[in-house]
Amino acid sequence: MPSSQTRTLETLMLETLKDIYHAEKQVLRALPKMAKAAKSEELRKALETHRQETEGQIERLEKVFESMDRAARGKPCEAMQGLVAEGQEILEEFSDSEALDAGIVAANQSIEHYEISRYGTLRTWAQQLGMEEAARIFEQNLEEEKKTDELLTQLAEAKANKKAA
Amino acid sequence: MPSSQTRTLETLMLETLKDIYHAEKQVLRALPKMAKAAKSEELRKALETHRQETEGQIERLEKVFESMDRAARGKPCEAMQGLVAEGQEILEEFSDSEALDAGIVAANQSIEHYEISRYGTLRTWAQQLGMEEAARIFEQNLEEEKKTDELLTQLAEAKANKKAA
Repeated sequence: MPSSQTRTLETLMLETLKDIYHAEKQVLRALPKMAKAAKSEELRKALETHRQETEGQIERLEKVFESMDRAARGKPCEAMQGLVAEGQEILEEFSDSEALDAGIVAANQSIEHYEISRYGTLRTWAQQLGMEEAARIFEQNLEEEKKTDELLTQLAEAKANKKAA
Repeated sequence: MPSSQTRTLETLMLETLKDIYHAEKQVLRALPKMAKAAKSEELRKALETHRQETEGQIERLEKVFESMDRAARGKPCEAMQGLVAEGQEILEEFSDSEALDAGIVAANQSIEHYEISRYGTLRTWAQQLGMEEAARIFEQNLEEEKKTDELLTQLAEAKANKKAA
């Protein structure tokens, strides 16, 4: 790592890219467990679709590493570790509860919001650094996360919560 | 804690309330450190204002506990612990960098997004449980977090990033 004095916005972008790359890989592992546990067919399908999207997002992030002449390598993302752990806790503590799906949706929305914040930040930085291709990639991932978050809101409002109440 | 079979949406709401209550208290401790480190006067002021807001939010959450006849007690929020740790890392690694403010803004936006997701979820659940006062409180906190997130976006786009690039 460069010394503190030479740490520019580009360094910050690279560190944040490593963070979200690691985070997405954790999500990729967590999603099948949550999909399997979901009681509603619609929620299960939404999580499976998002797992496939996540694979595509990871591949796109690898293109950004490539464009920066860096090996695609993550660095442990403590925030996502915490978010995934909270989701796992819901699976365990509410396994037999009618509120399980409501909890799975909530856990996934907190994950989506982390990603939304990261991709929004990364897109802004890439634009300011004149990295147009990277900015486009972050924007694409951002839009997918927002769409997933909206879909989960719809599912929660329409089904999981009513059933749980 | 009730057995898994009796865990309803109300239990889930209470657990999530404990989580965000603990999370907000962590934020209350982290904000002064970030405000102190910020290079720009505007960012420092924004973080100080949000610290005051956070105090009010915590008091509102205590009213929800009261309305549920429960002692106001948090449970360690691993996600927020991770988010705060990531912010702390930025403070250390970018202390002498011109990109420090961009990193502080990004860390705070990831924190805001966690809270936005939690308050959105809690508001929906409270509405479905017919807890109108709680729903109103979660909505109030949600709107404050969204406003802070927007203000940080403005600051990032207008100043911190350009300076850093």
